[in-house]
Amino acid sequence: MNESQSNPFGKHSGVLVRQGAPFNAGPAPELLVRSFITPNELFFVRNHGDVPTVDPAAFRLTVDGLVRRPLSLTLDEIRHFPKTTVTATLQCAGNRRLEMMAVEPIVNELPWGTEAVSNATWGGVPLRDVLAAADPRSRARHVAFTGLDETERHGHRFCFGGSIPLDKARGPEVLLAYEMNGEPLPPVHGAPLRAVVPGYIGARSVKWLQTITLREAPSDNYFQAKAYRLFPPHMRPESVDFEQGLMLGDFPVSSVTCAPREGERLPAGPVTVAGWALAGGGRRVERVDVSVDGGTTWTIASFASEEAPWGWRLWEARLDLPAGDHEIVCRAWDSAAHTQPESPAHVWNFKGYVNNAWHRVRVRCG
Amino acid sequence: MNESQSNPFGKHSGVLVRQGAPFNAGPAPELLVRSFITPNELFFVRNHGDVPTVDPAAFRLTVDGLVRRPLSLTLDEIRHFPKTTVTATLQCAGNRRLEMMAVEPIVNELPWGTEAVSNATWGGVPLRDVLAAADPRSRARHVAFTGLDETERHGHRFCFGGSIPLDKARGPEVLLAYEMNGEPLPPVHGAPLRAVVPGYIGARSVKWLQTITLREAPSDNYFQAKAYRLFPPHMRPESVDFEQGLMLGDFPVSSVTCAPREGERLPAGPVTVAGWALAGGGRRVERVDVSVDGGTTWTIASFASEEAPWGWRLWEARLDLPAGDHEIVCRAWDSAAHTQPESPAHVWNFKGYVNNAWHRVRVRCG
Repeated sequence: MNESQSNPFGKHSGVLVRQGAPFNAGPAPELLVRSFITPNELFFVRNHGDVPTVDPAAFRLTVDGLVRRPLSLTLDEIRHFPKTTVTATLQCAGNRRLEMMAVEPIVNELPWGTEAVSNATWGGVPLRDVLAAADPRSRARHVAFTGLDETERHGHRFCFGGSIPLDKARGPEVLLAYEMNGEPLPPVHGAPLRAVVPGYIGARSVKWLQTITLREAPSDNYFQAKAYRLFPPHMRPESVDFEQGLMLGDFPVSSVTCAPREGERLPAGPVTVAGWALAGGGRRVERVDVSVDGGTTWTIASFASEEAPWGWRLWEARLDLPAGDHEIVCRAWDSAAHTQPESPAHVWNFKGYVNNAWHRVRVRCG
Repeated sequence: MNESQSNPFGKHSGVLVRQGAPFNAGPAPELLVRSFITPNELFFVRNHGDVPTVDPAAFRLTVDGLVRRPLSLTLDEIRHFPKTTVTATLQCAGNRRLEMMAVEPIVNELPWGTEAVSNATWGGVPLRDVLAAADPRSRARHVAFTGLDETERHGHRFCFGGSIPLDKARGPEVLLAYEMNGEPLPPVHGAPLRAVVPGYIGARSVKWLQTITLREAPSDNYFQAKAYRLFPPHMRPESVDFEQGLMLGDFPVSSVTCAPREGERLPAGPVTVAGWALAGGGRRVERVDVSVDGGTTWTIASFASEEAPWGWRLWEARLDLPAGDHEIVCRAWDSAAHTQPESPAHVWNFKGYVNNAWHRVRVRCG
């Protein structure tokens, strides 16, 4: 193991480990904006259980439920479908939870900063081709994924899972992936096979995929039916009514300043501000604005990377900062003219999901 | 003409006329929430020119541009395609401009309150069926509509027009409509034929449709190329760079309180607050929140109407208001967890488009 891979699972030393077991980690923000594609050794990890050991020869993907032709596919049979690649950013629904925790404490959830997001080129089979082979019945409305990773909640031990609407599953962008950035999918990212659902919260891109079940209703797995819901602001763990939570899938536009870092000291004068912006659901990031006067006036950032329909956009802005303390604020706009809310207090929820408030970095110049 | 239709074009006396020629008008907000479907006599009108006189017998719809089979269709031929109906809300991109004008004046634009929005059941032909008959070439990416209504801008006289992406045009929800709420399409709403593009700003639902042109690029009509763009906050008419504006189509989630009205005096005690909420692009309105303490705490509204995939949702909340002055604030959330920005100052733009800030109504109780 070399110096740059001193973290578990081959991760770079610049990866911040938020939890050892299960392993949860993401890259230092300033490493994220170095390249449009996040190298595998930097790509964030959000796991709910230990990484399962899978024997590729014994592996079978089951496709069942509301289908006319249930399937049990070996890895070779999966690779026999036409292969495609999609560049897509995955983001954990809990990314930027730390900013919400500063508004009011959030218990039993990972204190993600801005690092639970990364962009890769995924190689695999379009899910719709496998679904077509299984021939869904007309009643089917949702596609449920179950992984091989076990976790425990409220005294029950079960495998991680979730679901997406069948209409979404039929999009050409949704893959069963066995490659990540041209390499075999690493174990910590779901080898031998994972779902990749671009434009949806990361939790729907189920890793170590073992079963695909066509259903009338969304998955009844804990992580679809109870967790990963957006609850009203007054709700708390002790008062939760799960039915009042919005099941998260598609997510709202967000942006983050990665450089300079929070608390950084800089010489007064010109400074280049850099970050990423991401829209959900296939919408496009149209513009990123940066302010140093609390949102009274804005500088329009320029895009600093190539563009892919399901990928983030890296951006840069050149500011001239006099000596003193400054707060750098950024916000993005998507192609439906959605922008970000001003304050995490306005979108706070007790699970700390989808915080997309204006992002703020405080620096001292001179 | 009876008392309730004392406005031009058969419009109800409760319709507020913002401009006589061209005719621009919309219903008093409290009339809007009386029914899920807006009656034709109340439906808002946004016209850019005079209502053209069309001879139905001589009328032809032209489909041209990047197609293998250019078409020239009579009304009878259009009615020969299978008919469908879609319930869809249309909203002018300038709805709620008045709240932006209170932040900073906006010149040469209509001062819409909250009335430039209505919901109808449209009957007609799916656009995709007509496109399929014309057989688009593989280079085609956009579908441009041109109306028969003439207008003038900067010394040029031309017909109103706009375009939508071909992918959107192929959605089953996009119609060439000749019926509105079960009646023949009224002249002021585009008879004999109009586009209805659910989930997009109203300007793309071109009325008095005469030509559909398949193109590689969006329409070069003034109302696509220059107007109906979302410009950055610092831009003004004299400094406009059209290329820096986002071409509006899909629009952001919004909600409005229609009852009680602004400035209304109410008895102290229980009050029912009612309004509408609307999401763009086929996203669903998931929740509406109402606050009387400036957004510190929120009451969850209940939905008060049926639901249609492309329609608004009417909502109600029961509040208990003590004697004194109150500001009732509402905001909605869509299925991608987008919510509304707090202040119109944060989304102000010199054309006054897509204001979706928290909506505020001030009342006095007791």
